[in-house]
Amino acid sequence: MRTLGIDPGSRVTGFGIVEQAGGRIVRVDHGEIRIKNGEPFTRCLSRIYDELTEVIDRTKPDAVAIEDIFYGKNVKSLIKQGHVRGVALLAASRNGLPVHEYTPLEVKKAVVGYGRAEKHQVQVMVQAILQLGEILPEDASDALAVAICHTHTKKETVL
Amino acid sequence: MRTLGIDPGSRVTGFGIVEQAGGRIVRVDHGEIRIKNGEPFTRCLSRIYDELTEVIDRTKPDAVAIEDIFYGKNVKSLIKQGHVRGVALLAASRNGLPVHEYTPLEVKKAVVGYGRAEKHQVQVMVQAILQLGEILPEDASDALAVAICHTHTKKETVL
Repeated sequence: MRTLGIDPGSRVTGFGIVEQAGGRIVRVDHGEIRIKNGEPFTRCLSRIYDELTEVIDRTKPDAVAIEDIFYGKNVKSLIKQGHVRGVALLAASRNGLPVHEYTPLEVKKAVVGYGRAEKHQVQVMVQAILQLGEILPEDASDALAVAICHTHTKKETVL
Repeated sequence: MRTLGIDPGSRVTGFGIVEQAGGRIVRVDHGEIRIKNGEPFTRCLSRIYDELTEVIDRTKPDAVAIEDIFYGKNVKSLIKQGHVRGVALLAASRNGLPVHEYTPLEVKKAVVGYGRAEKHQVQVMVQAILQLGEILPEDASDALAVAICHTHTKKETVL
């Protein structure tokens, strides 16, 4: 089973694909899509949609996993994140992929074993689980974390 | 000049197309896209994208006008509205249309002449300006109102 994790953000959208291979989970790919300074927002949404579609075409995941929105931020960036997340869900939906949603608590529990883990602990555990040679940037790590969470959990409900 | 106004909402998305014809503004089309109870959210976003794309193909507007988000609602529905708005902006962008954004205050001033007008006053003025035989539903009226606002204002900045 191959899962694409997406971490849509108001500035950076992380993505990460993992595959369950025997008893292990391996990383297939990961990356980050950044909103450029001064880039028109509509063009940016279009670029995020295109890049995610390209990732789906290239890596052929069976499902998409995405984190539920964490409400502890300011409303403006939450709404911006909502726009990006809408476009990400559309890219999944139009490629026929089921989308499974996990709370930040579920993701941290699945990856670190502790729901209140810090960002850095998630990065370290993603590196360890996937046996990577380096610590990955925060948003790519978060995307891989939610993909790992779905690989472990296999929640059936879809968004 | 033909303008498509969109009023994306967490439950209903209104759209309305107006055209400047000589000294008058006429309605070309209007409608509402509803989120159905129990419909998966991703399917719903995909349907909104498809319906707006179909409206653009059929009515061939020169520009899209959209209201800036009004922050006075609860955060959950603002974020849901953000998802829908992201998909609406994507539909505009991928059809090569510039998107112009107006605040609720600008729209009400342009249509009613008074920035603190009630919803019902907007509906009445939209009916009067477009010389319609009936008062239209709230979300279609709001979409036509932002399209009328852009027709009057012709703001050049794009989103």
